[in-house]
Amino acid sequence: MASAAVSYARQNQKRFLGELKDLLRIPSISTLPEHDNDVRKAAEFVVSDLRRIGMQNVQLISTKRHPLIYADWLKAPGRPTALCYAHYDVQPPDPLDEWITPPFEPAERNDNLYARGAVDDKGQLWMQIKAIEALMKSHDGKLPINVRFIIEGEEEVGGESIADFLRKNKSKLAADFALVCDTELFAPDLPTLCVGLRGLVYTEITAVGAKIDLHSGMYGGAAPNPFFALIEIISKLKDAKGRILIPGFYKDVKAPTKAELQAWKRLPFEEEHYRKTEVGSTALTGEPGFSVLYRTWARPTLEVHGMPGGFTAAGAKTVIPAKACAKVSMRLVPNQDPDDIFKKYKNYVKKLTPAGIQTSIKLWSSGPACVVGTDNRYIKAATEAMREVFKKDTVFIRSGGSIPVVADFQNVLKTPSVMMGFGLPDDNLHAPNEKFHIPNFYRGIESICLFFEKLAAA
Amino acid sequence: MASAAVSYARQNQKRFLGELKDLLRIPSISTLPEHDNDVRKAAEFVVSDLRRIGMQNVQLISTKRHPLIYADWLKAPGRPTALCYAHYDVQPPDPLDEWITPPFEPAERNDNLYARGAVDDKGQLWMQIKAIEALMKSHDGKLPINVRFIIEGEEEVGGESIADFLRKNKSKLAADFALVCDTELFAPDLPTLCVGLRGLVYTEITAVGAKIDLHSGMYGGAAPNPFFALIEIISKLKDAKGRILIPGFYKDVKAPTKAELQAWKRLPFEEEHYRKTEVGSTALTGEPGFSVLYRTWARPTLEVHGMPGGFTAAGAKTVIPAKACAKVSMRLVPNQDPDDIFKKYKNYVKKLTPAGIQTSIKLWSSGPACVVGTDNRYIKAATEAMREVFKKDTVFIRSGGSIPVVADFQNVLKTPSVMMGFGLPDDNLHAPNEKFHIPNFYRGIESICLFFEKLAAA
Repeated sequence: MASAAVSYARQNQKRFLGELKDLLRIPSISTLPEHDNDVRKAAEFVVSDLRRIGMQNVQLISTKRHPLIYADWLKAPGRPTALCYAHYDVQPPDPLDEWITPPFEPAERNDNLYARGAVDDKGQLWMQIKAIEALMKSHDGKLPINVRFIIEGEEEVGGESIADFLRKNKSKLAADFALVCDTELFAPDLPTLCVGLRGLVYTEITAVGAKIDLHSGMYGGAAPNPFFALIEIISKLKDAKGRILIPGFYKDVKAPTKAELQAWKRLPFEEEHYRKTEVGSTALTGEPGFSVLYRTWARPTLEVHGMPGGFTAAGAKTVIPAKACAKVSMRLVPNQDPDDIFKKYKNYVKKLTPAGIQTSIKLWSSGPACVVGTDNRYIKAATEAMREVFKKDTVFIRSGGSIPVVADFQNVLKTPSVMMGFGLPDDNLHAPNEKFHIPNFYRGIESICLFFEKLAAA
Repeated sequence: MASAAVSYARQNQKRFLGELKDLLRIPSISTLPEHDNDVRKAAEFVVSDLRRIGMQNVQLISTKRHPLIYADWLKAPGRPTALCYAHYDVQPPDPLDEWITPPFEPAERNDNLYARGAVDDKGQLWMQIKAIEALMKSHDGKLPINVRFIIEGEEEVGGESIADFLRKNKSKLAADFALVCDTELFAPDLPTLCVGLRGLVYTEITAVGAKIDLHSGMYGGAAPNPFFALIEIISKLKDAKGRILIPGFYKDVKAPTKAELQAWKRLPFEEEHYRKTEVGSTALTGEPGFSVLYRTWARPTLEVHGMPGGFTAAGAKTVIPAKACAKVSMRLVPNQDPDDIFKKYKNYVKKLTPAGIQTSIKLWSSGPACVVGTDNRYIKAATEAMREVFKKDTVFIRSGGSIPVVADFQNVLKTPSVMMGFGLPDDNLHAPNEKFHIPNFYRGIESICLFFEKLAAA
């Protein structure tokens, strides 16, 4: 680790952390229109630092909603080009009264930095920018490889603008690999690369029976009840063991390789501990014969998130609602085509719809699963860089969640991603008391420095 | 119809209608605390008229919520005693923008009086009071039979105070029969007595899985989903044909007599017309082999009214909620014991609850079905009175709904009810543009006059 960049980063840790705190003080909550100005302020803060550290062509790009940030430094001919991705928007902080210190007043406790966005994703965005600064300052104003940044402010609200932008600006974003810093370590001190994500098809079924809400006394026994219809339908989409019953649903599922499954078995994971501390239920569910990691990373699932309609206040109202809805999503695994799955799902729901009920289905979002190969130079360099920083072998994991932009990098830009994240499983993303473990912020900066230096040397 | 009372009623129709309009102008919405004063004003309006027409012991009785009204006139020794019941509170008027004229500005159109409460139940309450006035004025200040009034202001919010009051004041309410005016004619111009009501057990199941809301990407496939658990459970409570699957549920069901079923077949009812105009669905549902009237009046049913919990706003949120609920009710028929049914239901739900989920059940309301015999002098006199007014044979029907006070009159006071109502099926109870067909208001007054006169003569 005789890296001048790492040395620079170490000497500037306190300043880097102070800058991050300044960024965290801006409540850039992308979903709340009253915070639109704050979102813009956060973008301008980032733009200004990108300019200050020496990035070129720094641009704040207007979109239909929140601005994108582009920057590049492309003066390393013959060397690889990285596309650095992160986001500067954050989730709403509620419930506010569960925060120990206010969400937009960053506070240090036990080597952790507490604030909304600390780890998701401002802390990890700042890791990238500070790594670039360290590389730049320690290499006479040059970078060891070519670098582009594309940073968005809509990750927490669906990421429409970046999806649109990258379809229209493929050459502007041309790169050999993308560096995505929005994931986590599998366990504290365990260097981790995420090499697979599940896809998502998120739908809403609307069921309509009578023309108006009816009284269940007068009409119960004759009027069709859209809630009961949805219950009948959904009970037939998945069996009690978690197997999805949509015809053809599993046809294209590609299982992980034996080597990958073997590697997962070696990960430090204890099912009983996970059940008690992370889930907190009396039992876990899911398909028999598959481990928890297999089920959550590499098996498709179907969930119901909410069933709007009818009477939901306290007490009793004897209504047979004219209309009821169900938000139903499916997580997809590699090789399942979201369009194909949606079609099969839609046909099956229609087929299951009972007499007297009309169903219609809205597609709220759709994206494929994504796996990145591990035998390319980018993953190899990242693996080594993290091993050097953590002094432990890097593990490859998948995530059961979806990062749509990674699928877009893969499918639209044909650019593979390196998902190098430094969060921890208990960092409270999207929840009160979100935190970033401060040593991981510094390790992230150092890992990126070494990663890019290794790529230059390779 | 050489009745002096009827003559008096006819001469005073316009004034009676004018008084009713004054009562309708008071927005006595019992469920909204900001209308508590209006509810009281309506009660005082009624009290004042009861005094004016010559009723005795007129009392406004304070309760935990809205006042009860009591009055009596008991100077007809040897004659029967009637307990006249109605309610002076109304439902909220929303959605306001669907009213053609404002809900609390009574308006006449096409022989109908439009206002919130016109038929449910202020119009029918006023029918009773005006019949008593007509009888009193045309019989030298005397009534042909003994009369008590018990009038409530909480019918639309559960009727707790009257239930409590009648348990504690059985002798004060002692009567030979109750006259309940809160039902409807089976068809326009068809004199109708309601002789049966279904009971109700209204519950809410709460299902809990994980200790906190979880991300469906990270935890889908391992964390139990309380919505799916509820769907699994409820799908097994009733089959697709409407048959309830709770063990022992039908054991005590008492079917209507052959004569009653024969009489229902003679009623002017056209299933296709009912489907199109009242329900408006593409098909009706319910148990095969039973007619619509049988299914809605005399077969038990199970309905889902709402499923609070999870994510219900527009859009997509990938949450596996820690908790979800389902409001599930059962309509009961004669001889089914609500306590027994609730116990069977509760046990079955527990049995169906999948691993990893905890369910608990709240009982929101519970009451038995109720049938009144038709071969007593009260029903006979009512039948004849209505036949004379309408000049058609009176029909006996049941209602699929529940009027808990009727069950209480039966079970607590041991007093049979005569349910003589003058609403119409399209009167928009609980909906915008509630109306009362004005000729039916007058027929109601005349029917009650003749009914009581017949009882005196019998």
